[in-house]
Amino acid sequence: MDHRPWNQRQQDRQARLARAAEALGPRLSGRHVATGAVTDLLHAVIEPHDRVCLEGNNQKQADFLAQALASLDPERVHHLHMVQSVLALPEHLDLFELGLASRLDFSFSGPQGARLARLVSQGRIEIGAIHTYLELFSRYFVDLTPKISLVAAQAADRHGNLYTGPNTEDTPAIVEATAFSGGIVIAQVNEVVDGALPRVDIPADWVSFVVPAPRPNFIEPLFTRDPAQISEIQVLMAMMAIKGIYARYGVQRLNHGIGFDTAAIELLLPTYGESLGLKGKICRHWALNPHPALIPAIEAGWVESIHSFGSELGMEDYIRARSDVFFTGPDGSLRSNRAFSQAAGHYACDLFIGSTLQMDLDGNSSTATLGRIAGFGGAPNMGADARGRRHASPTWLQAGEESRRGRHGAAGTPRGQKLVVQMVETFREHMQPAFVERLDAWTLAEQARMPLPPIMIYGDDVTHILTEEGIANLLLCRSDEEREQAIRGVAGYTPVGLGRDRRLVENLRDRGVIQRPADLGIDPRDATRNLLAARSMRDLVRASGGLYRPPQRFRNW
Amino acid sequence: MDHRPWNQRQQDRQARLARAAEALGPRLSGRHVATGAVTDLLHAVIEPHDRVCLEGNNQKQADFLAQALASLDPERVHHLHMVQSVLALPEHLDLFELGLASRLDFSFSGPQGARLARLVSQGRIEIGAIHTYLELFSRYFVDLTPKISLVAAQAADRHGNLYTGPNTEDTPAIVEATAFSGGIVIAQVNEVVDGALPRVDIPADWVSFVVPAPRPNFIEPLFTRDPAQISEIQVLMAMMAIKGIYARYGVQRLNHGIGFDTAAIELLLPTYGESLGLKGKICRHWALNPHPALIPAIEAGWVESIHSFGSELGMEDYIRARSDVFFTGPDGSLRSNRAFSQAAGHYACDLFIGSTLQMDLDGNSSTATLGRIAGFGGAPNMGADARGRRHASPTWLQAGEESRRGRHGAAGTPRGQKLVVQMVETFREHMQPAFVERLDAWTLAEQARMPLPPIMIYGDDVTHILTEEGIANLLLCRSDEEREQAIRGVAGYTPVGLGRDRRLVENLRDRGVIQRPADLGIDPRDATRNLLAARSMRDLVRASGGLYRPPQRFRNW
Repeated sequence: MDHRPWNQRQQDRQARLARAAEALGPRLSGRHVATGAVTDLLHAVIEPHDRVCLEGNNQKQADFLAQALASLDPERVHHLHMVQSVLALPEHLDLFELGLASRLDFSFSGPQGARLARLVSQGRIEIGAIHTYLELFSRYFVDLTPKISLVAAQAADRHGNLYTGPNTEDTPAIVEATAFSGGIVIAQVNEVVDGALPRVDIPADWVSFVVPAPRPNFIEPLFTRDPAQISEIQVLMAMMAIKGIYARYGVQRLNHGIGFDTAAIELLLPTYGESLGLKGKICRHWALNPHPALIPAIEAGWVESIHSFGSELGMEDYIRARSDVFFTGPDGSLRSNRAFSQAAGHYACDLFIGSTLQMDLDGNSSTATLGRIAGFGGAPNMGADARGRRHASPTWLQAGEESRRGRHGAAGTPRGQKLVVQMVETFREHMQPAFVERLDAWTLAEQARMPLPPIMIYGDDVTHILTEEGIANLLLCRSDEEREQAIRGVAGYTPVGLGRDRRLVENLRDRGVIQRPADLGIDPRDATRNLLAARSMRDLVRASGGLYRPPQRFRNW
Repeated sequence: MDHRPWNQRQQDRQARLARAAEALGPRLSGRHVATGAVTDLLHAVIEPHDRVCLEGNNQKQADFLAQALASLDPERVHHLHMVQSVLALPEHLDLFELGLASRLDFSFSGPQGARLARLVSQGRIEIGAIHTYLELFSRYFVDLTPKISLVAAQAADRHGNLYTGPNTEDTPAIVEATAFSGGIVIAQVNEVVDGALPRVDIPADWVSFVVPAPRPNFIEPLFTRDPAQISEIQVLMAMMAIKGIYARYGVQRLNHGIGFDTAAIELLLPTYGESLGLKGKICRHWALNPHPALIPAIEAGWVESIHSFGSELGMEDYIRARSDVFFTGPDGSLRSNRAFSQAAGHYACDLFIGSTLQMDLDGNSSTATLGRIAGFGGAPNMGADARGRRHASPTWLQAGEESRRGRHGAAGTPRGQKLVVQMVETFREHMQPAFVERLDAWTLAEQARMPLPPIMIYGDDVTHILTEEGIANLLLCRSDEEREQAIRGVAGYTPVGLGRDRRLVENLRDRGVIQRPADLGIDPRDATRNLLAARSMRDLVRASGGLYRPPQRFRNW
């Protein structure tokens, strides 16, 4: 019988809690810590080399705790291993510049991507890996369990129960992994209430400390797209998506990425979609943040349910008034949950549609470009065929049948397949071609010594490529050469597009592998902004009956 | 502006709660319902055609509520759509025979599989689909959201907070989906406590009603395997698994299925594994129920962490005393969570190893046999390549490199791959061959009019097949023919095995695609039961220092 200690994690937690009690004295009452004592609290509980999750979500940020962490003494706190889904705030990287943290596992670093690349190249940050969200949460329960979690909530009650409000996001996954492994959970809250919370999102006994923040936590309205900025090219592409993919496969359950391309689809459902008689036949169930662009479709009765990763600023009253569509608590506000919504996006959706910056001739695509390390968030999880899925739907069966037609052996065994659509204009900003012979990801992998190039969606998971020139259905391609010509065939006037073999491309078109707007019965002259159910932010507000209240920066009135 | 009601789900919940209050009168106090009033409660809140989740887990059962549901009047309650992961109790199927329920979406029906098949063939049950667990939970948030959930917990406090004890299992996923969509959550509890719960697993305001059950809820010790029943063939296969797969790929993070085959591996780690110098090099992190067979490896210091789908009867004190290894609450008992553990099995593990009843020449395997509809539980989720995964590990990179070596185009783009091992003796019980030309699943699909044959693990997801004859590495096969001969080459004296092309099989052996025990430096004469770190239940108890207390049925002392 081994007599080594087997409860060190619990004892370590007790020791840290005792240190906090001693350091804080009367500034600690139950689980509640005085705002001004936050630095002392963090110094008392954090040790060098700790694995720390500083809640950076897609939207909600534990910004007060981020600032407090960045203010610690690097003599006392150093070599932290940060494990958090999103790097959004400058403080998230300050930690590394200041010598507090050295290692990083994450999912997305949108606004900090360029600075992150610089710090990596300077050897200031050692990157463990870049994950898709659900993958990072999964590792919290296996080999990246946080010792310290610093999270954000809307309110706490006297006991320390937390109310996250509509942006629950990552909080339950982070807190569960930490609280049940001898870790310390510290929550910043916008307010402490005397009575009952509107609802309890996190039970008090999962929380070690609650600190009132001096100002409400930062939230980014990441999913708001002004309809005024949608172009007629995007309207044309949205028409092709609806008629050539959604209608063709009868897509009922889906996820849309962020962007004007997909906002255009959302705004075309009650107009163009209606004219095709598709209401009730497509787009009924969504795994999606509360996109304001979806308001007209919701109002027109297209949408039965939406489960959300997070919320969206300004949508609070609209969600409350449309609780049949959204997942809400008894208090009327949204209950989002990124872990479950990502699982839904992976396993319960028939289609994922997103965009990319570059795609190569194998159909591999990536938003990683030189000088930036951005990560891909949820795209790899939702933009991959869910091979563990076993429930059938007509959409999934049809895609699987197209993919397996004429194949033999294991590859020919009947099986459904998820539709994964990449929707991209042939040229992006500054006339950069979206189609390339070689992804920047390869150079990036060499520069940052990554074991694999950072590919967002792999070519063998992509089923359709949609550009202003048409749709390429990769499910029907039977060789690398066909796949290459199908991609060249929708790549327009990019060098890759100009390099097409015209005879082969016409052959693919004859076989329906490539479809032009005309092949779909779409006249590009019909693709005008008049088709958009809302053409401005004001239109969205009007469509919501005044319930949607966009943040100031989206208003010109 | 549409003036249709948009909060019907919330209003419907209020109406049902009001009906319950009226029907129960003084038998309802706060959220607490008198035990004897359960039938009246269910009649008050359940309506025909409701979608109902009756918590049938892998282990914990809401058996009291199951019996109560089965006792309802089919004139008042009928056409229920049951959405639950496991059909374990007779009552789960009684509902259909009694005319209360008509449609079923589920994951696993082990003990009820034969009766289920009978009811389906009689047209008494319409099966929506058979899911892997995480897939079913995902659909709870999209298009299979329960209106009514009937769950089981260990205890409730006066407010209605729930303590699930070690078998949290599916409860959080079920309750979250129901509580935040205008549904009704009813919990049976073993006790109601006056003071504080040992911990809160589910907050009170997610729960509509709490009913004390007249006896503790049923729990099945599903993961206990008596080492006395492990054969020397299984010891030999376990040696091959450890040396030929775990050591070869340096597998650190893994899941084991249920069975004597994998129990043998667990029991060989501190003996054979130790002799190979593998401690600390393999098997450090697990997504796994608390298998008693893992006790010797834990005691010998092999295991750093285990996250569990559910718990295992008799392991309570051992888990409490080994909290560094298991995820436990401040109360010391396990916090399991099937949703997160399945996510971990999918995204954070490098290897899944399981068994099957039948495998065909494409490598497709299934435990579905004629006259039984059993479902596959977690196997499809964990036994599929996680194509959304982006973090690299040496194991995953090595498997991916072997798989892509010499390939071109999208299929040749470098990418890691999960190891999916099927471990199976060439003949199963009653001398039925495990290798067949055609899976029973095909006939079953025709009989039950399923859209696809119920295949558990698809051939193109399997990487290794391990039998007593050797290991076939399918990653290295480059054609359907090679794959077929690799499978025949380890299929022993089954007709499929006898049908091998000896020359091709020897060629595959020369190339290392097939490895015999001798090729691995394993002498089958060394494969004795003496290698097992525990050879009986009593040995397991002894290894645990008396902390493991097996259920009576596993004891002969």
